[in-house]
Amino acid sequence: MTRPLLQGITRPTLLVDEDKARRNIARMVDKARQSQVRLRPHFKTHQSQAIGRWFREAGIEQITVSSLEMAEYFAADGWHDITIAIPCNVAELEALQRLAQQVKLGILVDTTETLEFLLGEVTQPLQVWVKIDVGYGRAGVPWTDKDTVEDMVRRLTVGPEDGATHRMQFAGLLTHAGHSYAASGTPEIQEITNTSLDRMRSMQSMVESTFSQACPLSIGDTPSCGSLQEFSGVDEIRPGNFVFHDVMQLNLGVCHSDDIAVAVACPVIARYRQRHEVLIHGGAAHLSKEALRPAASMVRHGLPGQQSALFGLVVDQSVSASAATWGGIRPDAVVTDLSQEHGVLKVADSFWEHCPIGQALLILPVHSCLTADLFPAYISLQGNRLERRRTNDPAA
Amino acid sequence: MTRPLLQGITRPTLLVDEDKARRNIARMVDKARQSQVRLRPHFKTHQSQAIGRWFREAGIEQITVSSLEMAEYFAADGWHDITIAIPCNVAELEALQRLAQQVKLGILVDTTETLEFLLGEVTQPLQVWVKIDVGYGRAGVPWTDKDTVEDMVRRLTVGPEDGATHRMQFAGLLTHAGHSYAASGTPEIQEITNTSLDRMRSMQSMVESTFSQACPLSIGDTPSCGSLQEFSGVDEIRPGNFVFHDVMQLNLGVCHSDDIAVAVACPVIARYRQRHEVLIHGGAAHLSKEALRPAASMVRHGLPGQQSALFGLVVDQSVSASAATWGGIRPDAVVTDLSQEHGVLKVADSFWEHCPIGQALLILPVHSCLTADLFPAYISLQGNRLERRRTNDPAA
Repeated sequence: MTRPLLQGITRPTLLVDEDKARRNIARMVDKARQSQVRLRPHFKTHQSQAIGRWFREAGIEQITVSSLEMAEYFAADGWHDITIAIPCNVAELEALQRLAQQVKLGILVDTTETLEFLLGEVTQPLQVWVKIDVGYGRAGVPWTDKDTVEDMVRRLTVGPEDGATHRMQFAGLLTHAGHSYAASGTPEIQEITNTSLDRMRSMQSMVESTFSQACPLSIGDTPSCGSLQEFSGVDEIRPGNFVFHDVMQLNLGVCHSDDIAVAVACPVIARYRQRHEVLIHGGAAHLSKEALRPAASMVRHGLPGQQSALFGLVVDQSVSASAATWGGIRPDAVVTDLSQEHGVLKVADSFWEHCPIGQALLILPVHSCLTADLFPAYISLQGNRLERRRTNDPAA
Repeated sequence: MTRPLLQGITRPTLLVDEDKARRNIARMVDKARQSQVRLRPHFKTHQSQAIGRWFREAGIEQITVSSLEMAEYFAADGWHDITIAIPCNVAELEALQRLAQQVKLGILVDTTETLEFLLGEVTQPLQVWVKIDVGYGRAGVPWTDKDTVEDMVRRLTVGPEDGATHRMQFAGLLTHAGHSYAASGTPEIQEITNTSLDRMRSMQSMVESTFSQACPLSIGDTPSCGSLQEFSGVDEIRPGNFVFHDVMQLNLGVCHSDDIAVAVACPVIARYRQRHEVLIHGGAAHLSKEALRPAASMVRHGLPGQQSALFGLVVDQSVSASAATWGGIRPDAVVTDLSQEHGVLKVADSFWEHCPIGQALLILPVHSCLTADLFPAYISLQGNRLERRRTNDPAA
């Protein structure tokens, strides 16, 4: 039966549950406040000025983004303190400096090559974080390479030898322990986080003793920030995904199923009783190709066990007509394959009455950041349209 | 050194080589003409009215799409004969019938459940293809299930028993042998295609002998249509990807590297000599998470061999300033990981001089349909902007 929640939905549609998202924000704000650490949430997850305001209403004033274009988009909505948490793209230096005239802008540097280039070119004030690789292996100066970090901090703090002046200020050391996403659960996440923090503190001690100045630490990733209860010795945390969470966080044990605040409504277009499969209009173009592979056992945390890759879970929509949200995860249906526009679900007999043709199913995404990035807007459960940034628009 | 081809590119940008795309179109048009088969190209790959016109200039009049929204988008540019090649979404029936008043519209039906629903509701003329599953296993009536096909064709051709009239016309049998993408190379693709054709012809014989009327056959998928030299007994082919091709087609042996007509320009944001890695601004938000996994051996066809997943290949851009295209695939650089905005390349020493920070690298995508779907426009090598349909826009 079509319930009010999905009334009128005839094509793949990105839904956001504002109450859940605001609750996720409030929890992280509280946790940061109790640990006396600055919360600088990563806005790449939602990329929406409208949702950004939910954070502002919760007291947030500083944000993280992962491209200059995102920084420009949020600056246009009144955000004045923004860190672009990706190694600085020197090709965009002109636009970067324009933005630095308007807002307090933080950038990341993780090679001497980029730092030298910037020292020769930058004329506007920039907060420079030296990015450290604590073991993820994607970006950053290796945590073992104290000489490079010392050299970079020296160039930033002591100033150029030729007497020229730059406007760059050393902001501190920053890391992203993204290998927490490969953990088997919260005990391993906590182990990764503790090791990461030890490595950051060791580098911090070196900087503070060498240069006799404070060296702030910034860390970020939802598994760590979601699992830890306190952040002693850390100055700033930058989680992003927590505003929505997703099946990946659920599988890690970082969130509960009713914390997940986005779902894609996908109409059933065919169903095949004999092979226990349902076809939805909803594919890689709507959910992204991000999958949990069998290696990431989905039998943990009470999720439907399965042998193949998992591209999404189905939630119950048979809620009371008055409750403007969806129900729990169904144990009898799972998205097992996606092509561009088609999605394939394996379902048990008990699911049959819940998937008549034309009915939209509510799919929780594996990775909400990538799923949301495919849509130009969210539809709230109250039916409001919340615009997102138009990603990748060369004319924008 | 920045060459004219990439001059001024400072952020991830989708490039299309019009000459290559038009050549790909011309080849498929020629092949179809020689086989006296109708080419109804799938426009989900490019989703651009501008690129659609290249097909029209090559003589194409009929097209395939994979959603009603795509059909509406192309109908608005003067396409009058469109097949929506995904099982009919009955939730969109109202809009579907509106469009059927304007253009000759084909739909797919693969279950009795959907057909019965449509027979009771449809008042506008629709061409109905019965979709057959020849082994892919995603959608379609199983090729072994002659009873269901006979029943469906009967309902469509003989008409309702209660004397009511519907406007649906049986168009023929249609399939998509998508399992060709899992083939080890062109010999296996040809085997899959031949088996698929046998299964379709067997069903066709049943329909023609039972109902004493012609039963057209429509097949489609770029591996088959690209590998086969002729299509005896087939009435229509519906390949789509061939307009751009990609690393997946290259790996299958279906195209040559210089047939690939799209690339994403991604600026180098950091490079790490010791671990032979280069970081680009270009992640899942620009290339999609589609990957060739190690199981799909990439040592075939002269591609760089590797152990990990592959998310893209790099082409040479050291071409003469006058030649408005890119060069061959570099054997010394490969995209091995993607997060939302970051891409990681493993590179050999020989690549070092080609990847200074700020320089855009040209990445050939693994799956061009999904990559192009992430951008709102293409930039041609002549610098023109070619608009794409805005996917997933609930307000559109």
